[in-house]
Amino acid sequence: MKNYKLTVLKGDGIGPEIVDEAIKALDKAADKFGFSVEYDYQLLGGAAIDATGVPLPEETVNSCKAADSVILGAVGGPKWDKEPGNNRPEAGLLGIRKALGLYANLRPAVIFAPLRGASPLKPEIIGESLDIMVVRELTGGIYFGDRGTEERDGVKSAFDTERYSVPEIERIARVAFDMAQKRDKRLTSVDKANVLDSSRLWRATVDRIAKEYPEVQVSHLYVDNTAMQLVRDPGQFDVILTSNMFGDILSDEASMISGSIGMLASASLGGSGFGLYEPIHGSAPDIAGQDAANPLATILSIAMLLRYSLDEPEAAKAIEDAVAKALTKARTRDIYTEGCGAKLVGCGEMGDIVASLI
Amino acid sequence: MKNYKLTVLKGDGIGPEIVDEAIKALDKAADKFGFSVEYDYQLLGGAAIDATGVPLPEETVNSCKAADSVILGAVGGPKWDKEPGNNRPEAGLLGIRKALGLYANLRPAVIFAPLRGASPLKPEIIGESLDIMVVRELTGGIYFGDRGTEERDGVKSAFDTERYSVPEIERIARVAFDMAQKRDKRLTSVDKANVLDSSRLWRATVDRIAKEYPEVQVSHLYVDNTAMQLVRDPGQFDVILTSNMFGDILSDEASMISGSIGMLASASLGGSGFGLYEPIHGSAPDIAGQDAANPLATILSIAMLLRYSLDEPEAAKAIEDAVAKALTKARTRDIYTEGCGAKLVGCGEMGDIVASLI
Ligand SMILES: CC(C)[C@H](C(=O)O)[C@@H](O)C(=O)O
Ligand SMILES: CC(C)[C@H](C(=O)O)[C@@H](O)C(=O)O
Repeated sequence: MKNYKLTVLKGDGIGPEIVDEAIKALDKAADKFGFSVEYDYQLLGGAAIDATGVPLPEETVNSCKAADSVILGAVGGPKWDKEPGNNRPEAGLLGIRKALGLYANLRPAVIFAPLRGASPLKPEIIGESLDIMVVRELTGGIYFGDRGTEERDGVKSAFDTERYSVPEIERIARVAFDMAQKRDKRLTSVDKANVLDSSRLWRATVDRIAKEYPEVQVSHLYVDNTAMQLVRDPGQFDVILTSNMFGDILSDEASMISGSIGMLASASLGGSGFGLYEPIHGSAPDIAGQDAANPLATILSIAMLLRYSLDEPEAAKAIEDAVAKALTKARTRDIYTEGCGAKLVGCGEMGDIVASLI
Repeated sequence: MKNYKLTVLKGDGIGPEIVDEAIKALDKAADKFGFSVEYDYQLLGGAAIDATGVPLPEETVNSCKAADSVILGAVGGPKWDKEPGNNRPEAGLLGIRKALGLYANLRPAVIFAPLRGASPLKPEIIGESLDIMVVRELTGGIYFGDRGTEERDGVKSAFDTERYSVPEIERIARVAFDMAQKRDKRLTSVDKANVLDSSRLWRATVDRIAKEYPEVQVSHLYVDNTAMQLVRDPGQFDVILTSNMFGDILSDEASMISGSIGMLASASLGGSGFGLYEPIHGSAPDIAGQDAANPLATILSIAMLLRYSLDEPEAAKAIEDAVAKALTKARTRDIYTEGCGAKLVGCGEMGDIVASLI
C-alpha cells in the first residue's frame, strides 16, 4: 500500500477547523482508494509566533522538505498586526513559498453550478459557466526583490524592486502553457509592457516560449485592461499567466467574480510534483472557533493535492463529486440562501457530510 | 473679460474627433458665461512621432507650461506598437505628466442615472448610485523609478523600482483628504503593506496626515482585497487614495464597474490650479474617423477643467446639465440600447446637441 507523508499547517483563525474537515475527507478517500497518509503537524504564521516567536520555525521548513506535500489552512489576524513587517504571519507564508521553491501558484476561479446566482455579475455577463485558471509567479518579482528605507538630505523614502530573470519567466510560462494545452488552449499573458522593463522582458520571453506550444493561442494584455475585462467579459479567459504582484490582484478579483470564494482551492507548486495546497480565502478571525466556516475550499485543495502531487486522480474525482453532491444537501452560512433546498449546517457537519459521500 | 489660454493635444485615434466636440462645448460655455478661450494646438503621442520623430516634442511641453491648462484627447495605437519603449506614444503621456508635475490623478467612477443598467454588476450590488473618486499618485512609484536590464553570469534580468518619498506621499494624501472632506468624508488608502516597504511608509505617512483631517474616516485596505471589494460592494467606497501602479489598475476596474466608461472624465493636477484634462477611455483606433466615438467623457473633462482649474463653476455645471439632458435625446453607439428613448447619433451630432443645450 502506498503511504504518503504530508506536513499539515493549520495556521490561524478558521485554519484549524477547516483543515480538520479536509483531513477527514482525505482519510476517507485513503481508505476507499487503498493508500495511507501520515501527517506531521507543524506551526506557521501567528500560531508559530505565539509558540516560538517567529512565523516560520526551522522545524516547519524541515518537516515540509521531508514531506511529499503540504496542506495549509490560512494565516494571519489582527492579533499580530503590530509585529514588525519581517515577523508577521504573512512573512511566514512568503518565507515558506521561497524556502520550498513554490514558484507556480495555480488559482482556479470557477463557478459551481448551484452557486451560479452568487456571482456579483449579471447572469448575461457571467454566462453559462466560468473556468479561469490564474497562473501566478510566486517566488519572484516585487515580493522578493531588494527593498529598503533610505534617508537622503533629510528626505525619507522607501523602495521595492520588481525583478524577473529570463529563467524565472521561462519556467512559470511553461507551467501556464502546459496548463493551457490541457485546457481550452488559450493563454493570456498579463503585464505592463508599455511602462515596465521587467514587463517587456516578460513579454519577449513568453513570446519565445509560445513557439514551443503552437496549438496554444497567446495574447498579451495590460494589467489595467485585464482588471476591466475580468468584469466586462470574464468568459474570454482560459489561462491567465502573470507576475507575483499582478497575479495577487487579478486572482482575487477573478475569485470574487466567481461568487464562489468560499469554494476555491489553490496549489503552489515547486519542481517534481511537490506542492502546497490551501484555500484561497483568508483566516477569517471574526468567525474563528464558531463552527461557522466553510471547509469546502480546503477539502477541494485536497482534491488538487491528490491530482497534482500524489497522482491519485480517482480519489481526487471522488472528493470533487462528493463536494458537488454535498452542496445539494447542506451548506454553511456563507453560501446558504433561503430556498436553496439545502440545510444550513456548521463547519463540522459539512465536513461529515462530504466524508460520508466519498 | 477673462481670457484663458489652453494647450490642446488631440492625440491619436478618436482623439481629434472627441476633442473637436469638447471645444465646441467650451466655446459655447465661454459665450454664455462671458469669458474667452485661446487655443494652442500641439502634438503628443503617435501624431507627434509621425510629425517629429518623438512622442513629446519640446514645443508641446513649452506650450503647456505657458498655458492655464491642457486638454488631451487620447494617445496610442497599433501603428506605433513597434517603436522602442522609450519612443512609444505612452512615453509621451508619461513624459508630459512628469514635465508638468501632474502628481494628482483624479478619476471619478460615477454612474449616470440613465445608464445605470449598463453596469456589469447586478442592480442589488451596484445599488442606487455609485460615486467613487480614485485619487492616484501620478509622477512617482514604479512608473518613474530606476529601471533597466542586466546580464550576470549569462542570465538576463530586468528590473523596475517602486519608490516613494515622504513628501510625495504627503502631497497626494492631502489632495485625497481635501477631496474626502468635500465629499462623504470617507477615505480608503490602498497599499500592500504586508509585503512592500514602500507601502509601509505610505501607510504610516497617510496615518500621520490623517490627523490633520479629524472629520475624515480613514481605512487601509490591501490592493488585492480592494480589487475584490470593488466587485463585491463598490458602494462602500468614497475616496480611494493609492499609488501610481495600483491606481492604474483599480481606477480602470472601478470605471468598468460603473458601466459608464464612455462617460468618465479625469483630471491630472499639479500645483496651483494647473491641470491636464482627458477622458479615461483610450484612443479606440478601431473606430477612429468613423464619426462613431462618444465625445461625452471629453466634454465632461471640460467641466472638470472649468471647476478645478479655471474656477468657473457655473459654466462647469451648465455643461454637466447639458450632458445629462442630451443623454435623454441622443446617444452614440456605445451607450445606445433599443428602447432607451434616445436617438442613435454620431460623434459630431452628439457634440452639437450638447452645445445647443448649454
Ligand atoms: C498574505 C499575502 C502576503 C499573500 C500574498 O500577497 O501573496 C496573499 O494575499 C495571497 O495572495 O496569498
Ligand atoms: C497608457 C499608460 C501608460 C497609462 C498609464 O498606465 O498610466 C494609462 O493606462 C493610464 O492609466 O492613463
